[in-house]
Amino acid sequence: MAIDVGFIGLGIMGRPMALNLLKAGHRLRVYGRRPETMQPLMQAGATACTSPREAAEGAEVTIVMVSDTPDVEQVILGAEGVIHGARPGSVVVDMSTISPAATRFMARELAANGVEMLDAPVSGGDVGAVNAILSIMVGGKAEVFLRVKPLFEALGKNIVHIGDNGAGQVAKACNQIVVAVTIQGVAEALTFARKNGVDPGKVRDALLGGFAGSKILEVHGKRMLDHDFKPGFKTRLHQKDLDIVMQTARELGLALPAAALVMQNLNALIGSGDGEVDSAAVVKVVERMSGL
Amino acid sequence: MAIDVGFIGLGIMGRPMALNLLKAGHRLRVYGRRPETMQPLMQAGATACTSPREAAEGAEVTIVMVSDTPDVEQVILGAEGVIHGARPGSVVVDMSTISPAATRFMARELAANGVEMLDAPVSGGDVGAVNAILSIMVGGKAEVFLRVKPLFEALGKNIVHIGDNGAGQVAKACNQIVVAVTIQGVAEALTFARKNGVDPGKVRDALLGGFAGSKILEVHGKRMLDHDFKPGFKTRLHQKDLDIVMQTARELGLALPAAALVMQNLNALIGSGDGEVDSAAVVKVVERMSGL
Repeated sequence: MAIDVGFIGLGIMGRPMALNLLKAGHRLRVYGRRPETMQPLMQAGATACTSPREAAEGAEVTIVMVSDTPDVEQVILGAEGVIHGARPGSVVVDMSTISPAATRFMARELAANGVEMLDAPVSGGDVGAVNAILSIMVGGKAEVFLRVKPLFEALGKNIVHIGDNGAGQVAKACNQIVVAVTIQGVAEALTFARKNGVDPGKVRDALLGGFAGSKILEVHGKRMLDHDFKPGFKTRLHQKDLDIVMQTARELGLALPAAALVMQNLNALIGSGDGEVDSAAVVKVVERMSGL
Repeated sequence: MAIDVGFIGLGIMGRPMALNLLKAGHRLRVYGRRPETMQPLMQAGATACTSPREAAEGAEVTIVMVSDTPDVEQVILGAEGVIHGARPGSVVVDMSTISPAATRFMARELAANGVEMLDAPVSGGDVGAVNAILSIMVGGKAEVFLRVKPLFEALGKNIVHIGDNGAGQVAKACNQIVVAVTIQGVAEALTFARKNGVDPGKVRDALLGGFAGSKILEVHGKRMLDHDFKPGFKTRLHQKDLDIVMQTARELGLALPAAALVMQNLNALIGSGDGEVDSAAVVKVVERMSGL
């Protein structure tokens, strides 16, 4: 059944996601900060809007896909924000990766206006967005999740309701912790092999089938062997996501020593001009530390 | 074709491995420090010996499967060691997990007597040993590897020749680095979820299919959720293996910050009485640090 959808944020992730919703037969009112980003959506049948507020007007579900916590706050709560257009009973779905605490705050603000909210961050990158195979981690009420699920199914494959508002962001943060720390482990192991004069490619082959096996050893391990750091997932964005982790951990009084260590290596990468390359480049920091 | 094999070390790993070699039709001369360990092998057709030297006498291949570097040195180079029994042209295969540097030293000592050496540490634990599905990482000459390969095929599945003497031990060390650091990453992520009031089991489910997916998230993540730390792979042995890593890194002048961090957590576990449980118990240290 066709749903009236507001869609805000037409970047590298948002644009293909909006196109997939159109393909699935839904009616879209889109808003992108840069007007030229709306052109391909209009050609595919979407209505262009001049503000997040306008995109949310009349929509049953308004999806937000922007970069960081302040962007989402601006889009949802700002002067021309979604909160001023969304009708009571409608749902705001934030698919950006942002702070769980900020998510809970916005959910409360929207609830005060009778508007529901889901946080639904994704993993799978732009390739996952284009091919509609994103993993989607959802926080919010179960019944609201079920209402929005047909839209999620047009965008992704592994769609999991984790818990209350913010729980999707917490799961995404966990994802980024595991990915970051595993990258560091693989980087140290391959550098250990290399420094011992042993072919790190053969070591990776030997390890892939056993307990050391992971998607990161497979994909990022290969990038490390080839020193080919075309993203993939940019260091700058991984740093942004781990910053959310470290802020949240600080607020909660939780020590995450390995995540903090990798955060330093992402800082070092960005400082040395590698913010736009894949975060598998952490291996460069491990190598450089010991003069390799 | 039946091979005359000397087999030294009949513990939790060595005993089932020796039995698998007998089952494959090879002739075994066995030695275990505790005489009672030789009984089941004798019943299966092996000849019991009174020293490593005697086990190596007349053998084409002598396999060593003991605990740590000093044990292997004693078994191979000691007064009643393999080096005094092994005939020129025969092969000594050390399947223990020990120092790469000590391995290279012993390979040189044996070579001076005309005896070949392979290092062939395994992963897969006692279950892998019993079921002959061990992963075997091999260092030494390629032609020697090919000579011994029929024996490896009676013991394991994923059999990889990594490089020269010591390269098998380096690969095993890499395996232990990746496993240790990934355990830490999974422990921090699941603790982050828990401290945020989010169900860590649902987070694990959501993460398994994506880039955070790994054998460790699957197996050790489950152990962490259940707080069921029945080994598996004992903390005490993981500490021993990471100690080899850290010693080797020190000798090479190589910094491995995340591996060093996990080493501290293994130390803390052992100090708090958890040396005999699975090293997934690292999550207990992460939890305790922040009073969980």
